[in-house]
Amino acid sequence: MQELDEKILRQVIKPRPQESFKGTFGKVLLVGGNHQYGGAIIMAATAAVYAGAGLVTVACDPLNVTALHTQLPEAMVIDFHDQTALTKLVAQVDTVVIGPGLGTEAASLAVLQTVFAQTKAAQTVVIDGSAITLLAEHRLPLSAGQLIFTPHQMEWQRLSGLAIADQTPTANQAAQAKLGGMVLVKKHHTEIYASTGSWRLPIGSAAQAVGGMGDTLAGMIGGFCAQFRTDVTQAALAATYAHSAIADQLAENQYVVLPHQISHALPAFMKKVAQSGPDHQIGFMN
Amino acid sequence: MQELDEKILRQVIKPRPQESFKGTFGKVLLVGGNHQYGGAIIMAATAAVYAGAGLVTVACDPLNVTALHTQLPEAMVIDFHDQTALTKLVAQVDTVVIGPGLGTEAASLAVLQTVFAQTKAAQTVVIDGSAITLLAEHRLPLSAGQLIFTPHQMEWQRLSGLAIADQTPTANQAAQAKLGGMVLVKKHHTEIYASTGSWRLPIGSAAQAVGGMGDTLAGMIGGFCAQFRTDVTQAALAATYAHSAIADQLAENQYVVLPHQISHALPAFMKKVAQSGPDHQIGFMN
Amino acid sequence: MQELDEKILRQVIKPRPQESFKGTFGKVLLVGGNHQYGGAIIMAATAAVYAGAGLVTVACDPLNVTALHTQLPEAMVIDFHDQTALTKLVAQVDTVVIGPGLGTEAASLAVLQTVFAQTKAAQTVVIDGSAITLLAEHRLPLSAGQLIFTPHQMEWQRLSGLAIADQTPTANQAAQAKLGGMVLVKKHHTEIYASTGSWRLPIGSAAQAVGGMGDTLAGMIGGFCAQFRTDVTQAALAATYAHSAIADQLAENQYVVLPHQISHALPAFMKKVAQSGPDHQIGFMN
Amino acid sequence: MQELDEKILRQVIKPRPQESFKGTFGKVLLVGGNHQYGGAIIMAATAAVYAGAGLVTVACDPLNVTALHTQLPEAMVIDFHDQTALTKLVAQVDTVVIGPGLGTEAASLAVLQTVFAQTKAAQTVVIDGSAITLLAEHRLPLSAGQLIFTPHQMEWQRLSGLAIADQTPTANQAAQAKLGGMVLVKKHHTEIYASTGSWRLPIGSAAQAVGGMGDTLAGMIGGFCAQFRTDVTQAALAATYAHSAIADQLAENQYVVLPHQISHALPAFMKKVAQSGPDHQIGFMN
Repeated sequence: MQELDEKILRQVIKPRPQESFKGTFGKVLLVGGNHQYGGAIIMAATAAVYAGAGLVTVACDPLNVTALHTQLPEAMVIDFHDQTALTKLVAQVDTVVIGPGLGTEAASLAVLQTVFAQTKAAQTVVIDGSAITLLAEHRLPLSAGQLIFTPHQMEWQRLSGLAIADQTPTANQAAQAKLGGMVLVKKHHTEIYASTGSWRLPIGSAAQAVGGMGDTLAGMIGGFCAQFRTDVTQAALAATYAHSAIADQLAENQYVVLPHQISHALPAFMKKVAQSGPDHQIGFMN
Repeated sequence: MQELDEKILRQVIKPRPQESFKGTFGKVLLVGGNHQYGGAIIMAATAAVYAGAGLVTVACDPLNVTALHTQLPEAMVIDFHDQTALTKLVAQVDTVVIGPGLGTEAASLAVLQTVFAQTKAAQTVVIDGSAITLLAEHRLPLSAGQLIFTPHQMEWQRLSGLAIADQTPTANQAAQAKLGGMVLVKKHHTEIYASTGSWRLPIGSAAQAVGGMGDTLAGMIGGFCAQFRTDVTQAALAATYAHSAIADQLAENQYVVLPHQISHALPAFMKKVAQSGPDHQIGFMN
Repeated sequence: MQELDEKILRQVIKPRPQESFKGTFGKVLLVGGNHQYGGAIIMAATAAVYAGAGLVTVACDPLNVTALHTQLPEAMVIDFHDQTALTKLVAQVDTVVIGPGLGTEAASLAVLQTVFAQTKAAQTVVIDGSAITLLAEHRLPLSAGQLIFTPHQMEWQRLSGLAIADQTPTANQAAQAKLGGMVLVKKHHTEIYASTGSWRLPIGSAAQAVGGMGDTLAGMIGGFCAQFRTDVTQAALAATYAHSAIADQLAENQYVVLPHQISHALPAFMKKVAQSGPDHQIGFMN
Repeated sequence: MQELDEKILRQVIKPRPQESFKGTFGKVLLVGGNHQYGGAIIMAATAAVYAGAGLVTVACDPLNVTALHTQLPEAMVIDFHDQTALTKLVAQVDTVVIGPGLGTEAASLAVLQTVFAQTKAAQTVVIDGSAITLLAEHRLPLSAGQLIFTPHQMEWQRLSGLAIADQTPTANQAAQAKLGGMVLVKKHHTEIYASTGSWRLPIGSAAQAVGGMGDTLAGMIGGFCAQFRTDVTQAALAATYAHSAIADQLAENQYVVLPHQISHALPAFMKKVAQSGPDHQIGFMN
């Protein structure tokens, strides 16, 4: 298991090509936000936009449209009950993030099945929160695409069958091999498993133990994967590292870090990385 | 009657354990926010989240969902008319805050009765605003749990039967003994009564005489009690002290202090406390 | 006609009495905000809250509740179509501000008539925007109370019958005497007429020529009159001076000044005034 | 083809005349924002308000009213399905911006046709986004008024019939001549064609490749044209230059620039321009 370090940031976050347009930086669809958990999809979408994804659309319960547009006019929105619109949108994007605040009721399951039926091998699909629980409970066939699972330990237990106490690196790696895709097990010092290796995140703190932190990470991974899509594994690793690196900076002056603060810090953070030389320590946010 | 001082902050607000997750920092349910007073429950929930509670859910009139999610995507929400969902949620949390903007109509009373019927001895229940008025008017049996009442003087008159002019420390202590739980009588130099002692808050100013200040305090007490739940009395005292200490700092440059400003200042304030040595004066917000 | 100067600020804005509570600083009801002009009542209410009014309630079209609560959780709200609730509320407040975004349709007129039928001599009633147009068009009997009219020049023409070219100080003073109350004619160098004198505002600039500026002024006058109610004329003069003094400070660095920026600057501005000595120049916002 | 430089800013953005009122700075109507793309019209309207337009009204799907008022209480709003209100409003304004988030469904087309049927020769009409697509698809007769088209390259292909590879300056100029009005082809180094000349924008960067950037530009053009309406071509050129000049300043510290940040920077930016001497380099935002 490798320790991730800040080199992953410089490998992924490069100065943008001047000859480009919105499509160059990817299209992301985020699916979630039922009647009870609207904030989750808003936080995820905010992360995707501030990470620099070119075009971001949210599919959620229409109850959440106003709160979304108020915080994030940059995002477009559809009703996730509208199967026709949802099916059409999935076909148009590079990356799908599904799960933040999706819920586990019948309507949530229907949404998940619609999305899973439509994704293609060339797409990245980030599977988070309720989507993991639904997958585990209903033993659904997996989506096509490059899958990235982002369970916390309890969700990983549901998905892998491994009790938390049994989630050793060896067992996790074996479970990932069986499942396919990439797996981030979120915990103090998050672990990441893929067919090409495994990584441990040495940074982060208890100031991040706040509702919405995982939704923000899922959105950041979506934004990074859409934008830096030549190597999706690297992109996801960089997003994970950046998420905690920003939180650690904020936690120098805060007892808790609010998820939206991480998103709002992304443009300045990423600029620092893109400008930093290969041999020199990045002084984030200074 | 003891004078509270800033030592209470250091006794309660400690550096967070690294091996932790959201549940470590408690689950809070805030109940209130009818069709007329939606802002009250939003301010209370904002205080609970910024204080560092791990997971925060609001039960309110669905009219308020969008305004809540817009300001506070970190909070989850349910319709407080949905007795089944409300009953289920009460069972899942460490701390309940009931009353901010709840109103005193029939529906408010039904909500209060549902919540009171479900709380258990191990839970903390903060009873504020309209919930106090309803209790007094309908002479309801009290909730199980560690009760914390946060009346202003007129509400305390309703609840204790003591006219404002008769609310002396001795009379208040006797009324608290009869009522049980902990009582904060909010006024210039708030007084706090519990079975283990009584305290007087020597700080605070008229810059805090703004609608919503009490809702913010109730939410902070909820957030502190959920997070620092080994000693709920100490946690409530610390929240009360912190509320006015932050307001006093803001009032150095403001004629009035807006309630949400206190909440937004909490993460930086609490960090200063957690880092400060035991013998040294805390220079808040510098 | 006297030139207003910053002495009016120090005469009105004093350090707050420590022994006080929310009621000490007055209760304001703002009435307006139909389906088309919701922003106007939000801006007015924001001004009243940030000016330091103790308790602020808005009566508006329910369409605007969420936008109001999102920006201003400190305010309470009722549906202005609910005559019973509106009638009850008018009786409970010190100051009514009516007109910002009220509109001129039948429902607006009904609201205006309900409010006018209920106000009492001891109350201050600020009459702005559409309320002035309705008054003029329907030749309604005036409300009881200390009336403050805040027309711009075209509205003043409608109300007084004086064409803009004929609005000389002498003619304006005569029209005020006939109308009663206090009249602010909003223009470059606003003029104020009362039975006790007339004043000219020597400050302000074209950076304030933005929609919503007048709504903010009406709300500030309401907030000042409720809070500094021993001399309502002085309070209104101070609010008018403060509004342009803050705008002038902001306009040093801005081509236009947004109305909400003036409200948000109020707490710091008023603190500077309350702290400044009688003989010394107030360095606002430094 | 001329290179635009910052002289265009000083030619257009002058200190405001003191004897003025809201009408002096123009009335803008922005039309767009259907059920899916509400954020677009909010971003456009924000740009128009912060650019200093005197009065701004939005005609959109009523679904978007709350999100609009929350972010921008300065704007008024009508339901764009209400043909009577829309028709009346078009007659009252100096400038119409149509297209941001309008959509291309039947209702969108009806809105476009209503607006186009009402505009007069003296009005400026900025035609953006979906409005361009609708025009091209339905080969509608053009609106009366001074037309400004703001297509990106694909929309320009639809409107002009020129494939992107064939969009040379000569071909573009010829297409503009046939179409009439002014055409901004948005791309890396945007090109602008009018009957009086053609210009190339030498500034801007890939940090602007974010959804909503074009909506913001359309709103800025509307705000500038309403306010500086003695020379609409110059006003549009200045808006275009200012949009990228602000973005370039923000991009010094940000990997991506969010559209609303450009709008919020406008008042300070425009003040710098209005104060700068003719021979001296403008140090924006310093």
